[in-house]
Amino acid sequence: MDWLLTPGPVRLHPKALEALSRPQLHHRTAPAREVFLKARALLKAAFRTEGEVLILTGSGTLAMEALVKNLFAPGERVLVPVYGKFSERFYEIALEAGLEAHRLDYPYGQVPSPADVAREGYAGLLLVHSETSTGALVDLPALSRAFKEANPDALVGADMVTSLLVWEVALEAYGVDAALSGSQKGLMCPPGLGFVALSPRALERLKPRGYYLDLSRELRAQREGESAWTPAINLVGAVAAVLEEVLPRLEAHLSLKAWQNGLLYEVGEGFGLRPVPEVRSPAVAAFYLPEGIAYARVKEAFAQRGAVIAGGQGPLKGKIFRLSLMGAYDRYEALGVAALFREVLSEILPAS
Amino acid sequence: MDWLLTPGPVRLHPKALEALSRPQLHHRTAPAREVFLKARALLKAAFRTEGEVLILTGSGTLAMEALVKNLFAPGERVLVPVYGKFSERFYEIALEAGLEAHRLDYPYGQVPSPADVAREGYAGLLLVHSETSTGALVDLPALSRAFKEANPDALVGADMVTSLLVWEVALEAYGVDAALSGSQKGLMCPPGLGFVALSPRALERLKPRGYYLDLSRELRAQREGESAWTPAINLVGAVAAVLEEVLPRLEAHLSLKAWQNGLLYEVGEGFGLRPVPEVRSPAVAAFYLPEGIAYARVKEAFAQRGAVIAGGQGPLKGKIFRLSLMGAYDRYEALGVAALFREVLSEILPAS
Repeated sequence: MDWLLTPGPVRLHPKALEALSRPQLHHRTAPAREVFLKARALLKAAFRTEGEVLILTGSGTLAMEALVKNLFAPGERVLVPVYGKFSERFYEIALEAGLEAHRLDYPYGQVPSPADVAREGYAGLLLVHSETSTGALVDLPALSRAFKEANPDALVGADMVTSLLVWEVALEAYGVDAALSGSQKGLMCPPGLGFVALSPRALERLKPRGYYLDLSRELRAQREGESAWTPAINLVGAVAAVLEEVLPRLEAHLSLKAWQNGLLYEVGEGFGLRPVPEVRSPAVAAFYLPEGIAYARVKEAFAQRGAVIAGGQGPLKGKIFRLSLMGAYDRYEALGVAALFREVLSEILPAS
Repeated sequence: MDWLLTPGPVRLHPKALEALSRPQLHHRTAPAREVFLKARALLKAAFRTEGEVLILTGSGTLAMEALVKNLFAPGERVLVPVYGKFSERFYEIALEAGLEAHRLDYPYGQVPSPADVAREGYAGLLLVHSETSTGALVDLPALSRAFKEANPDALVGADMVTSLLVWEVALEAYGVDAALSGSQKGLMCPPGLGFVALSPRALERLKPRGYYLDLSRELRAQREGESAWTPAINLVGAVAAVLEEVLPRLEAHLSLKAWQNGLLYEVGEGFGLRPVPEVRSPAVAAFYLPEGIAYARVKEAFAQRGAVIAGGQGPLKGKIFRLSLMGAYDRYEALGVAALFREVLSEILPAS
């Protein structure tokens, strides 16, 4: 057994593997258009938007760049709280896109409060819902509300890379105008697709630019079940198959993911480990390394049991380790992983 | 039997399907780095360059945009002969990239001659090797040579989307400085990866820009077997598996592809059909529709036999049809397709 416990890519859903074993479809044919439209309709339901979801062939970073460049024109002022590697990336992309980006820095693991973003004079706010690098979850509805009270005309863009299908998400109901995600996290598919969800309000205010990233061009094509450029149609089929299976029992699925991640924290805290995030996302459990124990030692103890975990990123490199059950794991597999984690901790921690 | 006869996506190689059925790898682990480095080394051999090949997650269009934006700065003068839909795209991308792009127009199906591109005063020439939209092949070495005699310092960029693994390609030996391709054509894998091959000369002269498209950032990561952004690692595995199978017997493979495409032309011409291209690429056979017969009728006759073909694009829409055996078809399957094609033509052509 391979235990892929990284916070994405994750263990594939059996429906994804099944879809990927089918013969190749040509994207400009009726069967492919049907798959594409089905995936988009299911994604709209998953993101909870009355707007549109565009499927892009590329990583989540491509979707992030597409969101920023199509929502804001160069010179516009955006607020970017930075509390992990992915919010740092939002900031870098905003700069590269020529925006006047103001950053608010937080120690990795902490999260911004509504009062922090209640500042006037901005065209936009960029937030990461679930900060995969620290395991922290922000209160997206409260932050959007506070920011929009100060900036009623502004747009809120959110990274939902590890919240989609892992925690409750919504666009309009959360006051979020545009959001992005990818195929290799809560969707339990291989990497290769990024998604940009656009609320009706965002659709009215698109400022398209770029060539491959031009979302107005994608919108025209995708409304007809095609895409501007050759899509990774096999992956689109996998996404549709997984969503078709998971969405009808989404509540139970989200409860399972929350319980599984809670179980990981329970084990770690039971052994005295200190969690990284101030507010916990169900996508990943992040712990500071026990005093005097190097990351390589922890990684190796997991590897000896067939498990692959993740270390820290950016300033947390060499300081933390991360485990995730976001992939296609059921209740009993999670209990198996909890046992594995206990074994590892018993082995590496000094007997007290 | 599904006969996917479109000029990409194509019927998958069995090694690609096998690779895609494996459990998910995390891209920042040793087994994934090994796959990534193997794919890059095999791609270098396939493109015949001593430089580097970068694997991008996205379509061929993304790779085209990356090539143009990283090779030329805004304001630089480039020459773009336009003789089909994909050379038209090169021109559009050059404009969007802020280059001073000069187009040379040809009726679709014709190709530029060396004399046409022997014009001074350019920083670059952009050429499509095999114009999938018309079935035409250009003489890349002769065109590069003529252009560089007039512009010794200039760079030549080539679209090798449907020539890689279908016809002989080379970078340095052809005088080409950078080339692009994709996974879903001669490589017989699903769509989702674009490649940018850079000669040693191009590597020295990179002018990186953009975020997702910044090739200098990719170069740093890919030299270590990683990528700047989460790659479609499953597809990278498929590409490595197919190349490992095909490259050791490349000459026989190219002969087979040439023979198969010749067979399609033989059948069509035997029934009096008029080929579209002036010079034929082995990637696709393109024919004008017989007088008085609509594309829908031809498409339907193929569909009744389980075959999917392609129509015309741009100005050729409704005027031509295209068939391809670029996918994983052996000699006998090609003979079966020839029989199928004959049946179709016997059915749709008026008895004479």
